[in-house]
Amino acid sequence: MKHEEALHRLKNVEGHIRGIQRMVEEDKYCIDVIRQIHAAQAALNKVSTMILEGHLNSCLITAVRGDDPDDRERVLQEIADVFETATKV
Amino acid sequence: MKHEEALHRLKNVEGHIRGIQRMVEEDKYCIDVIRQIHAAQAALNKVSTMILEGHLNSCLITAVRGDDPDDRERVLQEIADVFETATKV
Amino acid sequence: MKHEEALHRLKNVEGHIRGIQRMVEEDKYCIDVIRQIHAAQAALNKVSTMILEGHLNSCLITAVRGDDPDDRERVLQEIADVFETATKV
Amino acid sequence: MKHEEALHRLKNVEGHIRGIQRMVEEDKYCIDVIRQIHAAQAALNKVSTMILEGHLNSCLITAVRGDDPDDRERVLQEIADVFETATKV
Repeated sequence: MKHEEALHRLKNVEGHIRGIQRMVEEDKYCIDVIRQIHAAQAALNKVSTMILEGHLNSCLITAVRGDDPDDRERVLQEIADVFETATKV
Repeated sequence: MKHEEALHRLKNVEGHIRGIQRMVEEDKYCIDVIRQIHAAQAALNKVSTMILEGHLNSCLITAVRGDDPDDRERVLQEIADVFETATKV
Repeated sequence: MKHEEALHRLKNVEGHIRGIQRMVEEDKYCIDVIRQIHAAQAALNKVSTMILEGHLNSCLITAVRGDDPDDRERVLQEIADVFETATKV
Repeated sequence: MKHEEALHRLKNVEGHIRGIQRMVEEDKYCIDVIRQIHAAQAALNKVSTMILEGHLNSCLITAVRGDDPDDRERVLQEIADVFETATKV
Protein backbone atom coordinates (compact mmCIF):
# COMPACT_ATOMS: atom_id res chain seq x y z
CA MET A 1 0.00 0.00 0.00
CA LYS A 2 1.21 3.50 -0.81
CA HIS A 3 1.11 4.70 2.78
CA GLU A 4 2.19 8.24 2.02
CA GLU A 5 -0.48 8.87 -0.54
CA ALA A 6 -3.26 7.25 1.50
CA LEU A 7 -2.22 9.17 4.62
CA HIS A 8 -2.05 12.42 2.72
CA ARG A 9 -5.56 11.92 1.42
CA LEU A 10 -6.89 10.94 4.85
CA LYS A 11 -5.45 14.14 6.32
CA ASN A 12 -7.22 16.10 3.60
CA VAL A 13 -10.49 14.36 4.46
CA GLU A 14 -9.96 15.21 8.13
CA GLY A 15 -9.56 18.89 7.19
CA HIS A 16 -12.63 18.62 4.99
CA ILE A 17 -14.69 17.24 7.89
CA ARG A 18 -13.56 20.14 10.10
CA GLY A 19 -14.62 22.53 7.35
CA ILE A 20 -18.05 20.89 7.30
CA GLN A 21 -18.29 21.33 11.08
CA ARG A 22 -17.68 25.06 10.60
CA MET A 23 -20.39 25.16 7.93
CA VAL A 24 -22.84 23.64 10.42
CA GLU A 25 -21.76 26.04 13.19
CA GLU A 26 -22.14 29.01 10.86
CA ASP A 27 -25.56 27.77 9.81
CA LYS A 28 -24.66 27.44 6.14
CA TYR A 29 -27.29 26.33 3.64
CA CYS A 30 -28.22 22.68 4.31
CA ILE A 31 -27.93 21.56 0.70
CA ASP A 32 -24.37 22.93 0.52
CA VAL A 33 -23.47 21.02 3.69
CA ILE A 34 -24.89 17.81 2.20
CA ARG A 35 -22.88 18.36 -0.99
CA GLN A 36 -19.68 18.79 1.01
CA ILE A 37 -20.38 15.63 3.01
CA HIS A 38 -20.83 13.87 -0.29
CA ALA A 39 -17.49 15.17 -1.57
CA ALA A 40 -15.76 13.91 1.59
CA GLN A 41 -17.31 10.48 1.04
CA ALA A 42 -16.10 10.43 -2.57
CA ALA A 43 -12.59 11.24 -1.32
CA LEU A 44 -12.83 8.33 1.13
CA ASN A 45 -13.82 6.05 -1.74
CA LYS A 46 -10.61 6.99 -3.50
CA VAL A 47 -8.63 6.00 -0.41
CA SER A 48 -10.48 2.67 -0.13
CA THR A 49 -9.80 1.82 -3.75
CA MET A 50 -6.14 2.76 -3.39
CA ILE A 51 -5.79 0.54 -0.33
CA LEU A 52 -7.57 -2.34 -2.06
CA GLU A 53 -5.21 -2.03 -5.03
CA GLY A 54 -2.24 -2.31 -2.69
CA HIS A 55 -3.87 -5.32 -1.02
CA LEU A 56 -4.48 -7.11 -4.33
CA ASN A 57 -0.87 -6.57 -5.38
CA SER A 58 0.62 -7.86 -2.15
CA CYS A 59 -1.41 -9.97 0.33
CA LEU A 60 -3.65 -11.45 -2.35
CA ILE A 61 -0.78 -12.54 -4.60
CA THR A 62 1.04 -14.06 -1.62
CA ALA A 63 -2.07 -15.94 -0.49
CA VAL A 64 -3.00 -17.23 -3.93
CA ARG A 65 0.53 -18.45 -4.60
CA GLY A 66 0.96 -19.84 -1.11
CA ASP A 67 0.41 -23.40 0.03
CA ASP A 68 -2.36 -22.72 2.52
CA PRO A 69 -5.80 -23.25 0.93
CA ASP A 70 -7.58 -21.85 4.01
CA ASP A 71 -5.56 -18.67 3.85
CA ARG A 72 -6.28 -18.29 0.15
CA GLU A 73 -9.96 -18.87 0.66
CA ARG A 74 -10.08 -16.34 3.49
CA VAL A 75 -8.36 -13.65 1.45
CA LEU A 76 -10.65 -14.18 -1.56
CA GLN A 77 -13.72 -14.18 0.65
CA GLU A 78 -12.66 -10.91 2.29
CA ILE A 79 -12.41 -9.27 -1.11
CA ALA A 80 -15.87 -10.53 -2.09
CA ASP A 81 -17.15 -9.19 1.25
CA VAL A 82 -15.75 -5.67 0.87
CA PHE A 83 -17.11 -5.64 -2.68
CA GLU A 84 -20.55 -6.61 -1.39
CA THR A 85 -20.43 -3.90 1.27
CA ALA A 86 -19.31 -1.41 -1.36
CA THR A 87 -22.23 -2.21 -3.63
CA LYS A 88 -24.62 -1.71 -0.77
CA VAL A 89 -27.75 -0.10 -2.27
CA MET B 1 -31.45 21.44 11.67
CA LYS B 2 -30.35 19.95 14.95
CA HIS B 3 -26.91 21.59 14.97
CA GLU B 4 -25.77 20.02 18.21
CA GLU B 5 -26.42 16.48 17.12
CA ALA B 6 -24.97 16.94 13.62
CA LEU B 7 -21.86 18.65 15.04
CA HIS B 8 -21.41 15.94 17.61
CA ARG B 9 -21.53 13.27 14.94
CA LEU B 10 -19.14 15.17 12.67
CA LYS B 11 -16.63 15.42 15.52
CA ASN B 12 -16.91 11.66 15.98
CA VAL B 13 -16.26 11.13 12.29
CA GLU B 14 -13.21 13.42 12.53
CA GLY B 15 -11.86 11.25 15.36
CA HIS B 16 -12.66 8.15 13.34
CA ILE B 17 -10.65 9.48 10.37
CA ARG B 18 -7.68 10.18 12.65
CA GLY B 19 -7.95 6.61 13.95
CA ILE B 20 -7.84 5.35 10.36
CA GLN B 21 -4.71 7.43 9.74
CA ARG B 22 -3.08 5.68 12.69
CA MET B 23 -4.09 2.29 11.27
CA VAL B 24 -2.36 3.18 8.01
CA GLU B 25 0.75 4.45 9.82
CA GLU B 26 0.91 1.27 11.89
CA ASP B 27 0.52 -0.81 8.76
CA LYS B 28 -2.69 -2.50 9.92
CA TYR B 29 -4.34 -5.13 7.72
CA CYS B 30 -5.71 -3.48 4.55
CA ILE B 31 -9.13 -5.08 4.74
CA ASP B 32 -9.62 -3.75 8.29
CA VAL B 33 -8.69 -0.26 7.13
CA ILE B 34 -11.22 -0.50 4.29
CA ARG B 35 -13.91 -1.62 6.72
CA GLN B 36 -13.22 1.35 9.00
CA ILE B 37 -13.37 3.74 6.07
CA HIS B 38 -16.70 2.21 5.22
CA ALA B 39 -17.96 2.73 8.76
CA ALA B 40 -16.92 6.39 8.64
CA GLN B 41 -18.86 6.80 5.39
CA ALA B 42 -21.93 5.20 6.93
CA ALA B 43 -21.68 7.69 9.82
CA LEU B 44 -21.49 10.54 7.30
CA ASN B 45 -24.64 9.21 5.63
CA LYS B 46 -26.45 9.50 8.94
CA VAL B 47 -25.39 13.15 9.20
CA SER B 48 -26.53 13.84 5.62
CA THR B 49 -29.93 12.32 6.27
CA MET B 50 -30.29 14.25 9.52
CA ILE B 51 -29.46 17.52 7.77
CA LEU B 52 -31.86 16.74 4.93
CA GLU B 53 -34.64 16.08 7.44
CA GLY B 54 -34.02 19.49 8.99
CA HIS B 55 -34.04 21.05 5.55
CA LEU B 56 -37.34 19.42 4.57
CA ASN B 57 -38.98 20.60 7.78
CA SER B 58 -37.84 24.21 7.44
CA CYS B 59 -36.59 25.62 4.11
CA LEU B 60 -38.70 23.29 2.02
CA ILE B 61 -41.93 24.07 3.87
CA THR B 62 -41.23 27.80 3.65
CA ALA B 63 -40.49 27.61 -0.07
CA VAL B 64 -43.49 25.45 -0.93
CA ARG B 65 -45.86 27.71 1.00
CA GLY B 66 -44.24 30.91 -0.24
CA ASP B 67 -45.30 33.06 -3.17
CA ASP B 68 -42.17 32.67 -5.26
CA PRO B 69 -42.54 29.86 -7.82
CA ASP B 70 -38.85 30.13 -8.82
CA ASP B 71 -37.77 29.70 -5.25
CA ARG B 72 -40.03 26.68 -4.83
CA GLU B 73 -38.82 25.11 -8.04
CA ARG B 74 -35.19 25.65 -7.03
CA VAL B 75 -35.68 24.03 -3.61
CA LEU B 76 -37.47 21.00 -5.08
CA GLN B 77 -34.84 20.63 -7.80
CA GLU B 78 -32.04 20.71 -5.20
CA ILE B 79 -33.67 17.87 -3.31
CA ALA B 80 -34.02 15.81 -6.48
CA ASP B 81 -30.34 16.56 -7.20
CA VAL B 82 -29.01 15.44 -3.83
CA PHE B 83 -31.17 12.33 -4.15
CA GLU B 84 -29.67 11.61 -7.57
CA THR B 85 -26.16 12.08 -6.24
CA ALA B 86 -26.99 9.83 -3.29
CA THR B 87 -28.21 7.04 -5.56
CA LYS B 88 -24.99 7.22 -7.50
CA VAL B 89 -24.15 3.66 -8.58
CA MET C 1 -44.90 11.65 -12.79
CA LYS C 2 -44.02 11.38 -16.45
CA HIS C 3 -45.37 7.85 -16.84
CA GLU C 4 -44.40 7.47 -20.47
CA GLU C 5 -40.76 8.29 -19.92
CA ALA C 6 -40.43 6.18 -16.77
CA LEU C 7 -42.17 3.21 -18.44
CA HIS C 8 -40.00 3.53 -21.51
CA ARG C 9 -36.87 3.43 -19.39
CA LEU C 10 -38.12 0.48 -17.34
CA LYS C 11 -38.75 -1.47 -20.54
CA ASN C 12 -35.19 -0.72 -21.60
CA VAL C 13 -33.90 -1.98 -18.26
CA GLU C 14 -35.95 -5.16 -18.69
CA GLY C 15 -34.31 -5.74 -22.07
CA HIS C 16 -30.94 -5.00 -20.52
CA ILE C 17 -31.52 -7.63 -17.83
CA ARG C 18 -32.44 -10.19 -20.49
CA GLY C 19 -29.22 -9.33 -22.32
CA ILE C 20 -27.28 -9.95 -19.11
CA GLN C 21 -28.99 -13.35 -18.76
CA ARG C 22 -27.73 -14.22 -22.24
CA MET C 23 -24.21 -13.14 -21.27
CA VAL C 24 -24.33 -15.52 -18.32
CA GLU C 25 -25.71 -18.36 -20.45
CA GLU C 26 -22.99 -17.81 -23.05
CA ASP C 27 -20.36 -17.76 -20.34
CA LYS C 28 -19.17 -14.25 -21.11
CA TYR C 29 -16.29 -12.75 -19.13
CA CYS C 30 -17.36 -12.16 -15.52
CA ILE C 31 -16.08 -8.61 -15.31
CA ASP C 32 -18.09 -7.63 -18.40
CA VAL C 33 -21.22 -9.13 -16.83
CA ILE C 34 -20.60 -7.13 -13.63
CA ARG C 35 -20.18 -3.94 -15.67
CA GLN C 36 -23.47 -4.53 -17.46
CA ILE C 37 -25.25 -5.16 -14.16
CA HIS C 38 -23.81 -1.90 -12.98
CA ALA C 39 -25.10 -0.08 -16.05
CA ALA C 40 -28.59 -1.49 -15.45
CA GLN C 41 -28.48 -0.23 -11.86
CA ALA C 42 -27.44 3.23 -13.05
CA ALA C 43 -30.41 3.23 -15.43
CA LEU C 44 -32.69 2.30 -12.52
CA ASN C 45 -31.29 5.21 -10.53
CA LYS C 46 -32.35 7.55 -13.31
CA VAL C 47 -35.89 6.17 -13.10
CA SER C 48 -35.94 6.58 -9.31
CA THR C 49 -34.82 10.18 -9.53
CA MET C 50 -37.37 10.91 -12.24
CA ILE C 51 -40.17 9.42 -10.12
CA LEU C 52 -39.01 11.35 -7.05
CA GLU C 53 -39.06 14.59 -9.03
CA GLY C 54 -42.64 13.92 -10.03
CA HIS C 55 -43.51 13.14 -6.43
CA LEU C 56 -41.95 16.35 -5.13
CA ASN C 57 -43.84 18.42 -7.69
CA SER C 58 -47.21 16.86 -6.92
CA CYS C 59 -47.87 14.88 -3.72
CA LEU C 60 -45.32 16.83 -1.70
CA ILE C 61 -46.66 20.24 -2.70
CA THR C 62 -50.21 19.12 -1.97
CA ALA C 63 -49.25 17.74 1.45
CA VAL C 64 -47.19 20.75 2.49
CA ARG C 65 -49.93 23.19 1.50
CA GLY C 66 -52.69 21.05 2.95
CA ASP C 67 -54.29 21.30 6.35
CA ASP C 68 -53.29 17.92 7.68
CA PRO C 69 -50.07 18.10 9.72
CA ASP C 70 -49.89 14.30 10.01
CA ASP C 71 -50.07 13.91 6.27
CA ARG C 72 -47.37 16.54 5.78
CA GLU C 73 -45.12 14.92 8.32
CA ARG C 74 -45.60 11.50 6.74
CA VAL C 75 -44.72 12.77 3.26
CA LEU C 76 -41.60 14.57 4.48
CA GLN C 77 -40.51 11.54 6.48
CA GLU C 78 -40.90 9.27 3.47
CA ILE C 79 -38.62 11.51 1.44
CA ALA C 80 -36.00 11.48 4.20
CA ASP C 81 -36.34 7.68 4.31
CA VAL C 82 -35.81 7.11 0.60
CA PHE C 83 -32.86 9.49 0.77
CA GLU C 84 -31.37 7.48 3.63
CA THR C 85 -31.86 4.23 1.73
CA ALA C 86 -30.29 5.81 -1.33
CA THR C 87 -27.19 6.90 0.58
CA LYS C 88 -26.79 3.42 1.94
CA VAL C 89 -23.04 2.78 1.94
CA MET D 1 -19.46 -18.96 -11.62
CA LYS D 2 -22.62 -20.68 -10.48
CA HIS D 3 -24.54 -20.03 -13.69
CA GLU D 4 -27.76 -21.60 -12.52
CA GLU D 5 -28.06 -19.50 -9.41
CA ALA D 6 -27.08 -16.25 -11.13
CA LEU D 7 -29.48 -16.92 -14.00
CA HIS D 8 -32.28 -17.76 -11.62
CA ARG D 9 -31.79 -14.50 -9.76
CA LEU D 10 -31.59 -12.48 -12.97
CA LYS D 11 -34.91 -13.96 -14.11
CA ASN D 12 -36.41 -12.92 -10.78
CA VAL D 13 -35.10 -9.39 -11.28
CA GLU D 14 -36.62 -9.33 -14.76
CA GLY D 15 -39.99 -10.27 -13.28
CA HIS D 16 -39.51 -7.63 -10.59
CA ILE D 17 -38.88 -4.96 -13.24
CA ARG D 18 -42.06 -5.96 -15.06
CA GLY D 19 -43.93 -5.68 -11.78
CA ILE D 20 -42.57 -2.16 -11.35
CA GLN D 21 -43.76 -1.29 -14.86
CA ARG D 22 -47.25 -2.36 -13.83
CA MET D 23 -47.03 -0.20 -10.70
CA VAL D 24 -46.20 2.80 -12.89
CA GLU D 25 -49.02 2.01 -15.35
CA GLU D 26 -51.49 1.64 -12.49
CA ASP D 27 -50.31 4.93 -11.02
CA LYS D 28 -49.21 3.40 -7.73
CA TYR D 29 -47.81 5.65 -4.99
CA CYS D 30 -44.43 7.07 -6.11
CA ILE D 31 -42.61 6.23 -2.90
CA ASP D 32 -43.66 2.58 -3.18
CA VAL D 33 -42.36 2.47 -6.75
CA ILE D 34 -39.02 3.93 -5.62
CA ARG D 35 -38.80 1.33 -2.86
CA GLN D 36 -39.38 -1.49 -5.35
CA ILE D 37 -36.73 -0.11 -7.69
CA HIS D 38 -34.41 -0.08 -4.73
CA ALA D 39 -35.18 -3.71 -3.93
CA ALA D 40 -34.46 -4.69 -7.55
CA GLN D 41 -31.09 -2.93 -7.33
CA ALA D 42 -30.26 -4.75 -4.11
CA ALA D 43 -31.06 -8.05 -5.86
CA LEU D 44 -28.73 -7.07 -8.69
CA ASN D 45 -25.98 -6.37 -6.15
CA LYS D 46 -26.32 -9.93 -4.91
CA VAL D 47 -25.85 -11.22 -8.45
CA SER D 48 -22.78 -8.99 -8.96
CA THR D 49 -21.19 -10.23 -5.76
CA MET D 50 -21.93 -13.84 -6.67
CA ILE D 51 -20.33 -13.40 -10.09
CA LEU D 52 -17.31 -11.66 -8.57
CA GLU D 53 -16.85 -14.54 -6.13
CA GLY D 54 -16.83 -16.98 -9.04
CA HIS D 55 -14.33 -14.79 -10.85
CA LEU D 56 -11.97 -14.60 -7.87
CA ASN D 57 -12.05 -18.36 -7.46
CA SER D 58 -11.31 -19.10 -11.11
CA CYS D 59 -9.87 -16.46 -13.48
CA LEU D 60 -8.06 -14.60 -10.71
CA ILE D 61 -6.36 -17.69 -9.32
CA THR D 62 -5.33 -18.76 -12.82
CA ALA D 63 -3.93 -15.33 -13.63
CA VAL D 64 -2.06 -14.89 -10.35
CA ARG D 65 -0.48 -18.32 -10.63
CA GLY D 66 0.22 -18.00 -14.34
CA ASP D 67 3.43 -16.85 -15.99
CA ASP D 68 2.10 -13.77 -17.68
CA PRO D 69 2.67 -10.65 -15.56
CA ASP D 70 0.58 -8.49 -17.93
CA ASP D 71 -2.35 -10.83 -17.62
CA ARG D 72 -2.06 -10.84 -13.83
CA GLU D 73 -1.85 -7.08 -13.69
CA ARG D 74 -4.88 -6.73 -15.95
CA VAL D 75 -6.99 -9.06 -13.83
CA LEU D 76 -6.04 -7.31 -10.59
CA GLN D 77 -6.69 -3.90 -12.11
CA GLU D 78 -10.13 -4.99 -13.30
CA ILE D 79 -11.05 -6.02 -9.77
CA ALA D 80 -9.88 -2.69 -8.38
CA ASP D 81 -11.92 -0.97 -11.10
CA VAL D 82 -15.18 -2.78 -10.39
CA PHE D 83 -14.61 -2.08 -6.68
CA GLU D 84 -14.15 1.62 -7.42
CA THR D 85 -17.31 1.68 -9.53
CA ALA D 86 -19.16 -0.14 -6.76
CA THR D 87 -18.12 2.41 -4.13
CA LYS D 88 -19.36 5.19 -6.31
CA VAL D 89 -20.89 7.78 -3.99
